[in-house]
Amino acid sequence: MAAAQSLQIPESNQAMGRPIEAAVYGMPSKFESHVVRRRTDVFKNRQNWSDWSMTPLQYQPGIITPNGLIYERHHAGTPDIDPDKHRLVIHGMVKQPLMFTMDDLVRYPSVSRFYFMECSGNGLTDWLKPASKTVQQTHGLLSGALWTGVPLSTLLDEAGVDPAGKWVLFEGADGSAHTRSVPLEKCMDDTLIVYSSNGEMLRPENGYPVRAFMPGWEGNVCVKWLRRIKVTDQPANFRSETARYTDPMPEGKWRQFSMVMECKSVITSPSGGMTLKKPGYREVTGFAWSGAGKITGVDVSFDGGKNWREAAVEGPVMDKCLTRFKIGWNWNGGPAMLVSRARDNTGYVQPSVHDIRKVRAIVGFVQHHNGMQAWSVGANGEVSNAIAQV
Amino acid sequence: MAAAQSLQIPESNQAMGRPIEAAVYGMPSKFESHVVRRRTDVFKNRQNWSDWSMTPLQYQPGIITPNGLIYERHHAGTPDIDPDKHRLVIHGMVKQPLMFTMDDLVRYPSVSRFYFMECSGNGLTDWLKPASKTVQQTHGLLSGALWTGVPLSTLLDEAGVDPAGKWVLFEGADGSAHTRSVPLEKCMDDTLIVYSSNGEMLRPENGYPVRAFMPGWEGNVCVKWLRRIKVTDQPANFRSETARYTDPMPEGKWRQFSMVMECKSVITSPSGGMTLKKPGYREVTGFAWSGAGKITGVDVSFDGGKNWREAAVEGPVMDKCLTRFKIGWNWNGGPAMLVSRARDNTGYVQPSVHDIRKVRAIVGFVQHHNGMQAWSVGANGEVSNAIAQV
Repeated sequence: MAAAQSLQIPESNQAMGRPIEAAVYGMPSKFESHVVRRRTDVFKNRQNWSDWSMTPLQYQPGIITPNGLIYERHHAGTPDIDPDKHRLVIHGMVKQPLMFTMDDLVRYPSVSRFYFMECSGNGLTDWLKPASKTVQQTHGLLSGALWTGVPLSTLLDEAGVDPAGKWVLFEGADGSAHTRSVPLEKCMDDTLIVYSSNGEMLRPENGYPVRAFMPGWEGNVCVKWLRRIKVTDQPANFRSETARYTDPMPEGKWRQFSMVMECKSVITSPSGGMTLKKPGYREVTGFAWSGAGKITGVDVSFDGGKNWREAAVEGPVMDKCLTRFKIGWNWNGGPAMLVSRARDNTGYVQPSVHDIRKVRAIVGFVQHHNGMQAWSVGANGEVSNAIAQV
Repeated sequence: MAAAQSLQIPESNQAMGRPIEAAVYGMPSKFESHVVRRRTDVFKNRQNWSDWSMTPLQYQPGIITPNGLIYERHHAGTPDIDPDKHRLVIHGMVKQPLMFTMDDLVRYPSVSRFYFMECSGNGLTDWLKPASKTVQQTHGLLSGALWTGVPLSTLLDEAGVDPAGKWVLFEGADGSAHTRSVPLEKCMDDTLIVYSSNGEMLRPENGYPVRAFMPGWEGNVCVKWLRRIKVTDQPANFRSETARYTDPMPEGKWRQFSMVMECKSVITSPSGGMTLKKPGYREVTGFAWSGAGKITGVDVSFDGGKNWREAAVEGPVMDKCLTRFKIGWNWNGGPAMLVSRARDNTGYVQPSVHDIRKVRAIVGFVQHHNGMQAWSVGANGEVSNAIAQV
């Protein structure tokens, strides 16, 4: 009894709180100011305008990234476009070129779908040895959202694609006029012309008022601030398709147009920079995703890949969408090495970094890193990046 | 050719945009400043502290409400609670009373689920005749989110509920010490102790750092800023269970504990306050939801209920979750009366306002309005509230 502590009535119970404002867009608690997008501090960016910021995945439960935390990547800064003045054009090898206002566009039948979005450069600082500390730095060019827009097939059908049309060019209204080429087949399949994420109009840094969205493909092709769609008979071989966003091969060649983001996973809790305060039970959790389809399972190892246990995967499991996995772990207070390995419904299994190195070369800015991420846990509970150790 | 307009290169293509900030929580475009929560301007609130603000449903695509726009309702303002100091207690008819820090709580196995949340007072200004103009005013005490938390059954099992325990009391740490009683059966079924919505910690006005969440039940029982859970053998008959949140019956009695939010729907586009600019094809869309289960279908009438067509329902259709319906409509430019009617997997069909009046009395603050919402379209294209006209 002497040790008993009487339950306190908190101050908040003894005072009125803040009243409601007449018109307001709500913000996070002041106690959550550490949960922000961050510009990389691993890789010094000397270009000033071509830049990116990363999603704090270590703080994200579920499979939805709040709009204020969706990662950003651009080549000439974020324009502030007036939607009333914006125009989207479809031209090239079509019967009838079309020009849309935003008012026109939102009258078309729309769809809303849950998809992940990932930059092909996600993880490029961490191939050979740990360069980054947190999962925000290693994997934060990844977000998940409910995207709303018009199927591009609807608009292309209205324009009438020439049978000789095979590729489609997308151009943005930003200072870099960012442009990519995409095969017509993907455009007629599940590509969306998106104007909303998570129930509101896109944020400026994510393409307001309208962007392309190719589900499961690298973010770079999902051209933001979209103003021009041109049907052609061949790819245009833009800078982002030749000098960048290509994959070095062991024989010295570079592979172009590898745009599918292959099956991948990462443990977000515990992850780099965290400290386990005490031994005992905790839930280990993370994300799995595949640009090729649905996640069918995730295995987790606590001993650096010697033994694996299957994690629980939380539904609804959706095509080309972030999928949450969870597994209970009793930490005994000693060193451990955590790693996850996902597989998808094509039969593909996420490879180790060592396995990727057998089929790729690691030189320059190497895109499309879907290797397994290991986190080491020290006897002091500190969690550290252990990339390439499994 | 004389009429042809050459395609302009927009200014945004000719300048650099805004650079990325080192650490930032992103915000909507300045061109979206009209998309905000609004305090009611229909019903003058003279209590100063007991207040609410409403979600701008007319601007929300999909089934997720951004956290900054989730409706708020409280009885004594919003407290700003320090999560490190917050404690949650379980006591009463249990073997072992328990006290949790937030750090303790987030180590438990969690689940993330998509659910709607609705205030039982949603629509209370509009029973007999139109009092509100927009769907934000008629239905904006409604939001949808991905909620993450710990199943209450996990925590109650750890505490060990006395076999004589039948009800559970929930108390908030706000200035009103808002308190409600909930049957143990619901607590052991799908009730969650929630700390996150849409991938980040709850917002202060939505219960930061932790709240109760009873899926499909009126928002008032989902006690925010939760500090105390007490197992009892009977309901406590608090003010919000006697003087408020009850349903007047035709014979002059008042029904208590009618906490399930029954099947309902509303067309959000077009909706009150909008103007159709020109005749022709447009997509008509809205929300359907049921606290009793899943939506199985939505019918829409364009002539005030004489003829009905089945709308398309967008998947994934989830239990006790907002469900999006869509139907194409060719407006001929003349007067029209739009109305939607949802049904759920219990066989229940959303009633007309007239049908509800047969089994309820409309006196005072009448909760649990799930009647059909009609919108009239004038020959000038103006869309107006036509509640109780169908």
